[in-house]
Amino acid sequence: MSQRKISSDLVGMTFAPVTFSWTWKEVILYALGVGAKPEGDLDYVFEGKGPKVLPTFAVIPGMVGGSGLSQIEINLAMLLHGEQGMTLHREIPPEGRIKLTGRVRDVWDKGKAAVIVTETAAEDDNGPMFTTRSTLFIRGAGGFGGERGPSTAGLNVPPERQPDHVVEDVTRPEQGAIYRLSGDFNPLHIDPDFAKMAGFDKPIVHGLCTYGFAGRAILRVLCGGEPSRFESFDARFADNVYFGDTIITKIWRTGAGEAIVQAETQKGNVVLAQAKATYKE
Amino acid sequence: MSQRKISSDLVGMTFAPVTFSWTWKEVILYALGVGAKPEGDLDYVFEGKGPKVLPTFAVIPGMVGGSGLSQIEINLAMLLHGEQGMTLHREIPPEGRIKLTGRVRDVWDKGKAAVIVTETAAEDDNGPMFTTRSTLFIRGAGGFGGERGPSTAGLNVPPERQPDHVVEDVTRPEQGAIYRLSGDFNPLHIDPDFAKMAGFDKPIVHGLCTYGFAGRAILRVLCGGEPSRFESFDARFADNVYFGDTIITKIWRTGAGEAIVQAETQKGNVVLAQAKATYKE
Repeated sequence: MSQRKISSDLVGMTFAPVTFSWTWKEVILYALGVGAKPEGDLDYVFEGKGPKVLPTFAVIPGMVGGSGLSQIEINLAMLLHGEQGMTLHREIPPEGRIKLTGRVRDVWDKGKAAVIVTETAAEDDNGPMFTTRSTLFIRGAGGFGGERGPSTAGLNVPPERQPDHVVEDVTRPEQGAIYRLSGDFNPLHIDPDFAKMAGFDKPIVHGLCTYGFAGRAILRVLCGGEPSRFESFDARFADNVYFGDTIITKIWRTGAGEAIVQAETQKGNVVLAQAKATYKE
Repeated sequence: MSQRKISSDLVGMTFAPVTFSWTWKEVILYALGVGAKPEGDLDYVFEGKGPKVLPTFAVIPGMVGGSGLSQIEINLAMLLHGEQGMTLHREIPPEGRIKLTGRVRDVWDKGKAAVIVTETAAEDDNGPMFTTRSTLFIRGAGGFGGERGPSTAGLNVPPERQPDHVVEDVTRPEQGAIYRLSGDFNPLHIDPDFAKMAGFDKPIVHGLCTYGFAGRAILRVLCGGEPSRFESFDARFADNVYFGDTIITKIWRTGAGEAIVQAETQKGNVVLAQAKATYKE
């Protein structure tokens, strides 16, 4: 099958639905991958407690649902994961089987780069379960005469005051080795030689792993540890996290069921920016 | 099916063969469970390097091969895993499918307790791959008029000198949560409530997890990191390890291709005793 070129014509393209099944073992493996520990997170890592499912587990099937992107001509070496979002329609059960339908929601022409926004909807026999959103930034693929798209410059900027909550959590040297077993096998996150070839000093933490750490913080402090109160979480990947770094998630309550989120490392660099969470009060 | 009572008549009982399949994902998950990390152990946790398979991975299918023990009347609340051994006939491949045949090798009557020694042989189309040995200690099940068996009092005692090698490795608070995903779901190793009910202050490290830590040390210092040089490893579980403890593996070279091994924690208590490894020089 020949691939389609990146252009505004892709908007509305729908991928063939795929199914995804999981059991409590995948749920626990994911939770361990994003830093959950028996002490403090037993509900998420012990099947005797359900287990509860971290809302951000949605990005794992979401990635599978977006696999239709392979029908588009994308130079993987030029691809960056720019943003990730998700909306939870109801609590994810500890085991299940869902149908995932991905589609291209937007295509923007940033001049040098192209931006593709995909959206994947997950449903089972009881209806919609969650929706995930990914923004892909493809360097060198712009200039196809498309629209530039809206500016996100002033979006979800933290208030000029101390955050209402700060959650710190350390990534393990082996964090990526655990996380990748959930399905993201890009060697960039484990192989020093590959990382060097790709222009990094050493392997970097999966953006979606950092997203999972921040999601755990949101769940704990905004949702009282109840996944059913988690509604949505959108974030932009702003900088690299290295294994061993501490992820410091700062949360500002900005309205009823709304918060601005920013994650930094112990070095002070912002790694998740312009992030917003919504939740049930 | 009615269960057979513990007696000397069980010796020679053979369990129906079972098959076991694995891929590199199970191999890596096991390696992470026994403390392997990308830095220093990349060969064991990254499929791009094979992965190499830790020799002690054998105990995972070995446990499945011993599942015929359910045909014997054993009070699980009185059961202790006393000893574990294994012999590697050739390197374990990163994926495979094997037939496991377990049998009862010995039954001893220690007066108050009964001891059952099982042996599981693994083979594939290319012949024998490994053999595992487990000694089960069943409190309160002795007194059936069987033989007492040989004394192991003076067996594999470390020489009265400093060890030739000392390898230290820290167990993570989440070590058991990772290890158990390889197939040992006993809640004793994760659930504080269950641990208390079983008479422990808090969850304890799986004996076979500690065994895996010691096996990694043996592989590194005696076998130069080559699984094909690893021949056998037998050990007695002597005390509890708690999550967060450091496992200190001491190794004394005692002859050509032979070493005495002992593992302790940072508290000085011996946790793997009377242990012996053999290897190709």
